[in-house]
Amino acid sequence: MENVEEKLKKIKIIVSDVDGVLTDGKLYLLGQEEEIKVFFSKDEPRVVIALKSGLRVLLVTARKCKAVVRRAEEMKVELMYKDELKEKKFLDVIKEKYGLEAGEIAYIGDDWSDLYLMEQVGVAITPYDGSNENKKVAHIITEAKGGGGVMAEAIEKIMKAQGTWETCLRESVLEIYQD
Amino acid sequence: MENVEEKLKKIKIIVSDVDGVLTDGKLYLLGQEEEIKVFFSKDEPRVVIALKSGLRVLLVTARKCKAVVRRAEEMKVELMYKDELKEKKFLDVIKEKYGLEAGEIAYIGDDWSDLYLMEQVGVAITPYDGSNENKKVAHIITEAKGGGGVMAEAIEKIMKAQGTWETCLRESVLEIYQD
Amino acid sequence: MENVEEKLKKIKIIVSDVDGVLTDGKLYLLGQEEEIKVFFSKDEPRVVIALKSGLRVLLVTARKCKAVVRRAEEMKVELMYKDELKEKKFLDVIKEKYGLEAGEIAYIGDDWSDLYLMEQVGVAITPYDGSNENKKVAHIITEAKGGGGVMAEAIEKIMKAQGTWETCLRESVLEIYQD
Amino acid sequence: MENVEEKLKKIKIIVSDVDGVLTDGKLYLLGQEEEIKVFFSKDEPRVVIALKSGLRVLLVTARKCKAVVRRAEEMKVELMYKDELKEKKFLDVIKEKYGLEAGEIAYIGDDWSDLYLMEQVGVAITPYDGSNENKKVAHIITEAKGGGGVMAEAIEKIMKAQGTWETCLRESVLEIYQD
Repeated sequence: MENVEEKLKKIKIIVSDVDGVLTDGKLYLLGQEEEIKVFFSKDEPRVVIALKSGLRVLLVTARKCKAVVRRAEEMKVELMYKDELKEKKFLDVIKEKYGLEAGEIAYIGDDWSDLYLMEQVGVAITPYDGSNENKKVAHIITEAKGGGGVMAEAIEKIMKAQGTWETCLRESVLEIYQD
Repeated sequence: MENVEEKLKKIKIIVSDVDGVLTDGKLYLLGQEEEIKVFFSKDEPRVVIALKSGLRVLLVTARKCKAVVRRAEEMKVELMYKDELKEKKFLDVIKEKYGLEAGEIAYIGDDWSDLYLMEQVGVAITPYDGSNENKKVAHIITEAKGGGGVMAEAIEKIMKAQGTWETCLRESVLEIYQD
Repeated sequence: MENVEEKLKKIKIIVSDVDGVLTDGKLYLLGQEEEIKVFFSKDEPRVVIALKSGLRVLLVTARKCKAVVRRAEEMKVELMYKDELKEKKFLDVIKEKYGLEAGEIAYIGDDWSDLYLMEQVGVAITPYDGSNENKKVAHIITEAKGGGGVMAEAIEKIMKAQGTWETCLRESVLEIYQD
Repeated sequence: MENVEEKLKKIKIIVSDVDGVLTDGKLYLLGQEEEIKVFFSKDEPRVVIALKSGLRVLLVTARKCKAVVRRAEEMKVELMYKDELKEKKFLDVIKEKYGLEAGEIAYIGDDWSDLYLMEQVGVAITPYDGSNENKKVAHIITEAKGGGGVMAEAIEKIMKAQGTWETCLRESVLEIYQD
């Protein structure tokens, strides 16, 4: 049987849930309409080097909210709503949009609405504080808790398996203050 | 004497306090009027399957605020203010609204204003960080702290005792991405 | 030398700092003007029974902000700004407003701006995560951290020393749902 | 080789990143435009005595936001955007603005965008929860986590090495309630 390291080498897209992965799953509701989302600053630079290495990143969420749209824009990644994935099969969407197969997808999810997706992909990842059901189907449980760098850790694992981490990190750090 | 497992089998409604149970008891006050409530994403899908299994869920709160109304709507559960329970006896209200008896009620509360209610119901539940006085009268102290899945854990315990957990969970997960 | 238990019996007013005592010292700044203050729900019912037992409670703060005014109103306690205490001597203010002496004051503070006040009163209290300098002058270090029930714990200690805790708690709990 | 204590004696300016140092790195996004920054109350009085002792403090950030501007104003320190440092060399900016050399700068940073700066200064400091790459180049790793008093701890270390801590603290505490 193929081990996780071998599976990680094949990944070409990281698809990630938002609440409980990029956040700690807390829902900050302000009045009747507004919602505050609490993201983690260190996820962003890792997404930047993942994109540079040729990986794609796609966020999926069930809770539509302006702050999520804004964070996706800041990180320069695409955002889809889980409702859109309901209508068609998830793998068909990824195939159609990106031309990628199940084995080329890593999916990060922390709760039940992610189970169906986690079961279909090459590498399923869940946070340290993911639900028990998610831990059972996950290939990787991160050391980070939701909102504490789960995406960052997933990217580091994938890029290290693919041998792109060191080079991309070095280039990224140098580029920041290049004259 | 009847043990807790037997008591849990009889539960037909879960009545829960908000602050300190669905939240960690922190009050986020913004200016003179607005208030942010911080809920936990994982409570909602458990409420969904609880409702599917035939259980009822009722929230009660002493702090009127728009975010609580909104969360109750999101979870599709009823919301009452503790003031309304003051005027009539709590058990009379439940009897009248739902036709249910004391032994069919589970009540989750973390502080003094919940003590009187906890003492009257079939199963009294308090969070890991509930007040000492509440721990003394509780049949169950959850492993979760307030705002960290207390409702989710209570629902899992009740539904497992009632033998509905596995089926409802399976149906719920399958339904999410059904074409 | 008089022990802390003896000192606690003499307390007639609790004066408390806000940031770092009623909150965890985090300053939530929203834009150029607004500020969110994060209080703890369990402090309030303890303040209620402290007031019933005849104790007075006064909040003092260096950061003027609407949310603090609102919380003071919710808890039905007075609020003064530290600036006002600068102009006159602190003990003179307490003497004038309440007719109370140094030995009748408990002061709760977590940082440097509280040191001068803590050194003058009958009982000086600091949170578990108070600054080292405050711990040195404190008679009592609470088990609770700032924003996690420091005021609640201080009140319980004082009322137990004064023999009013059990009665007032019982009355408070019974009163809540009295028809 | 010169030890850290010797290096600390030469420091004349503390340059610090904001997210992950003055905050815990959480990004509180409210809707499409607003952002809440969560600072720590105890950093401010330490900055006050650092300035009194003759040290300079400069904040640098990559995320422009009103709350950061406001906090810098509250602490009476200057604020620069990392973009401005990109155009010219960092050390040239410090030389030009303050007439100070590399060995007179302490830089506090928690993530990759700080690495280039940390490598150039006399004393590089990173929080307890700084990134691994930052820990490798740091002379000092604080006991405090980001947003929990990293600046406060850095200031205490520098001022103690420079022999100014005790006097400035004493003066500061006395001054607060001077009539």
